[in-house]
Amino acid sequence: MLEELKQKVFEANLQLVKYNLVVLTWGNVSAIDREKGLFVIKPSGVPYDTMKAADMVVMDLNGNKIEGELNPSSDTPTHLELYRQFNDIGGIVHTHSSWACSWAQAGRDIPAYGTTHADYSNGSIPCARGLTQNEVEDEYELNTGKVIVEEFNKRCINPAECPAVLIHRHGPFTWGKDAFKAVENALILEEVAKMAYRTESIAGFADNANIGIEQYLLDKHYQRKHGVNAYYGQK
Amino acid sequence: MLEELKQKVFEANLQLVKYNLVVLTWGNVSAIDREKGLFVIKPSGVPYDTMKAADMVVMDLNGNKIEGELNPSSDTPTHLELYRQFNDIGGIVHTHSSWACSWAQAGRDIPAYGTTHADYSNGSIPCARGLTQNEVEDEYELNTGKVIVEEFNKRCINPAECPAVLIHRHGPFTWGKDAFKAVENALILEEVAKMAYRTESIAGFADNANIGIEQYLLDKHYQRKHGVNAYYGQK
Amino acid sequence: MLEELKQKVFEANLQLVKYNLVVLTWGNVSAIDREKGLFVIKPSGVPYDTMKAADMVVMDLNGNKIEGELNPSSDTPTHLELYRQFNDIGGIVHTHSSWACSWAQAGRDIPAYGTTHADYSNGSIPCARGLTQNEVEDEYELNTGKVIVEEFNKRCINPAECPAVLIHRHGPFTWGKDAFKAVENALILEEVAKMAYRTESIAGFADNANIGIEQYLLDKHYQRKHGVNAYYGQK
Amino acid sequence: MLEELKQKVFEANLQLVKYNLVVLTWGNVSAIDREKGLFVIKPSGVPYDTMKAADMVVMDLNGNKIEGELNPSSDTPTHLELYRQFNDIGGIVHTHSSWACSWAQAGRDIPAYGTTHADYSNGSIPCARGLTQNEVEDEYELNTGKVIVEEFNKRCINPAECPAVLIHRHGPFTWGKDAFKAVENALILEEVAKMAYRTESIAGFADNANIGIEQYLLDKHYQRKHGVNAYYGQK
Repeated sequence: MLEELKQKVFEANLQLVKYNLVVLTWGNVSAIDREKGLFVIKPSGVPYDTMKAADMVVMDLNGNKIEGELNPSSDTPTHLELYRQFNDIGGIVHTHSSWACSWAQAGRDIPAYGTTHADYSNGSIPCARGLTQNEVEDEYELNTGKVIVEEFNKRCINPAECPAVLIHRHGPFTWGKDAFKAVENALILEEVAKMAYRTESIAGFADNANIGIEQYLLDKHYQRKHGVNAYYGQK
Repeated sequence: MLEELKQKVFEANLQLVKYNLVVLTWGNVSAIDREKGLFVIKPSGVPYDTMKAADMVVMDLNGNKIEGELNPSSDTPTHLELYRQFNDIGGIVHTHSSWACSWAQAGRDIPAYGTTHADYSNGSIPCARGLTQNEVEDEYELNTGKVIVEEFNKRCINPAECPAVLIHRHGPFTWGKDAFKAVENALILEEVAKMAYRTESIAGFADNANIGIEQYLLDKHYQRKHGVNAYYGQK
Repeated sequence: MLEELKQKVFEANLQLVKYNLVVLTWGNVSAIDREKGLFVIKPSGVPYDTMKAADMVVMDLNGNKIEGELNPSSDTPTHLELYRQFNDIGGIVHTHSSWACSWAQAGRDIPAYGTTHADYSNGSIPCARGLTQNEVEDEYELNTGKVIVEEFNKRCINPAECPAVLIHRHGPFTWGKDAFKAVENALILEEVAKMAYRTESIAGFADNANIGIEQYLLDKHYQRKHGVNAYYGQK
Repeated sequence: MLEELKQKVFEANLQLVKYNLVVLTWGNVSAIDREKGLFVIKPSGVPYDTMKAADMVVMDLNGNKIEGELNPSSDTPTHLELYRQFNDIGGIVHTHSSWACSWAQAGRDIPAYGTTHADYSNGSIPCARGLTQNEVEDEYELNTGKVIVEEFNKRCINPAECPAVLIHRHGPFTWGKDAFKAVENALILEEVAKMAYRTESIAGFADNANIGIEQYLLDKHYQRKHGVNAYYGQK
């Protein structure tokens, strides 16, 4: 079942390798069929170079495995929670990409320092609060998803306008309308995280450098690409 | 029309990929036919791996699309203004290359720290002033071009002697006698930006390091490559 | 003799090149046949692109060459000592990979800053004490092995739970159940070392960033991958 | 004439590209035939991907072009001076490799921080003094060579024990017994420069890190690879 979606999720997983976003088996992509209420996800710990489309695992939104011989990604409950709470997203990516993870490990949001960031997200990329010991020890991966949702709610961030989050001490989750867009957003996040690091360094070398994009420039770039009157790209 | 120029602009755009200067569809190259007063530019938001030479868009210097089925790059008005004001340039490149963008995001000029820089530009690479809210909200891309020209005029920089500029919070524009030279200058800018970052770090690690190229060494290197009596390369 | 093991050690050595963990002839992989009490190791200073499986050298645990026309790696006595003292390991890797070496040169442990690290090791990656002048001048490579063992004993670290060590001023040794796992651990170490560097930088840019993974999160990640009830991957 | 040497110099120049040590046409390799008193060098400003072995230029030790249709590298007088003063070297490389250039631009020696460095050079890689305005304006490239020799003499460094130098504000020259060894030394220099940068950063993150290799460890590593009783590699 869902053979076409499995093929897409499979291909999107391989894009993680192509874009140098994963090492070994780290990282996973999923995508959902909203009509059927089922999502397809990478199996856990399977090497990318021997993985087949048929290895993808089908899950329902209660966390039951519907089809597949292999265990789904150990991060499946996080994906599940995001699909349940963020109704407009169609694909999710988790990686341990180096620059995004480094911000996550430092426990810091990635500030919007320029138009590359503004083209992508309508503000900082939030680093969610750390999980408590109880949240870690019981239903860790589900709680990871809940903490993401809590953070977006608390800060009034619309997941449609910010396609990424950092898990404290861990790494990024990104999403999009489908699996491929979620991978693209994982790639852009890594670029934005790298540039933000370098921007802080370069400002730090000088005495009087001020950084942080002006709100009107942030709005302009976000809206010219994503707004109602967006004029970037083709119709 | 301008099929040969379209082919060159197409190939120059692909060089951005080859030189790792772009991610996804970020970046664009244009080139002008000065006799006809027309320039050719990459279409907006088209992936490099499916783009064809025939997709290139022909524009006149009043900003009218003369030929092409696709929308031109959203940065077209910036290219246009540069072609109007910098009479000797034949090709223009815009990228979001990481090192140059990071300096732009920090709002700093790239100082001339060594001979690699001096072989390329006769002084610092200027970071133009930020645009005002009005300039951003109305005719943003055109104003981006105007601010570049203003900065060069204010500082008395000859665009023939400095083939690059940083847009505040945004990224670089580079130019040259044709599209290929403009791409080459985008590549060199990235190298120079990277080395300047590392130079400031290495100097910062030590107590008594002084940096900044001596004026006579800057002149020597710039002139041996670009001056009347240049002796680098073949005749 | 041991043709199958030679082939594996040969292939594992080539993986060092594939994973960009070595420059020129730097680095070596070995693996042991515990039943026979013999191990196979890369010959010293042989280029990876002309090396053949038949060039691998067979050694016994007293340091005698049992088979092979070439000299074994100059680091052989270190491998030997680790095989003698760490009874559960089956393969060993030594590289001069850049990020791990940089921590070793700075003489610092790599702290556990996030879950990528916790998935890999049950605590910091130790930097062993420097060797004394006597230890360097007489039986240097053997003493390198002894100092590793001393450091693990002194700190009560189980080599099964920490598959890597940094040699002071020198670089990393990693190990695993076989040659391939030891190479994988060398690759992960490099990633972890890189992220730790960036984490300290990013924290340093901010006033109030605190870093260092919480013990309960470290335990959770280490146990979900390596513990009795591990649930990462397939059965 | 010297067709075999031309072929080697040609191949060694291409290795600069393979090892990512050059951008565009930056960098050049030469090698000398000591019996004939002639050396072969890359032509100036010729792209690596169209260059042929027959394009190599033959020079004598008085700086006369003996054979070749193209201009020799503009850095030829520097090579010439090094061949005249460092009698044991057979090949020379100049690049603008990023890490080495950054140390040169900061005007700092690269300190010996670990065994990777000690395997390569018997002490710091010196950054030569900057040239005076007169030295720059008249016979600049020849004076660059003279300043290298002056620096080695003043510091009593034997060029056989330190195969590299940094030109102030400029970049590295390396040498070796032939063109290939000189390229290998350019590659190692880049690795060593990168690690030294990172070592200083990592030490700087901590309060009490001390760096700098112990003299007895430096001696051990240098001698085990290059000394009379060297035991690294094959006989």
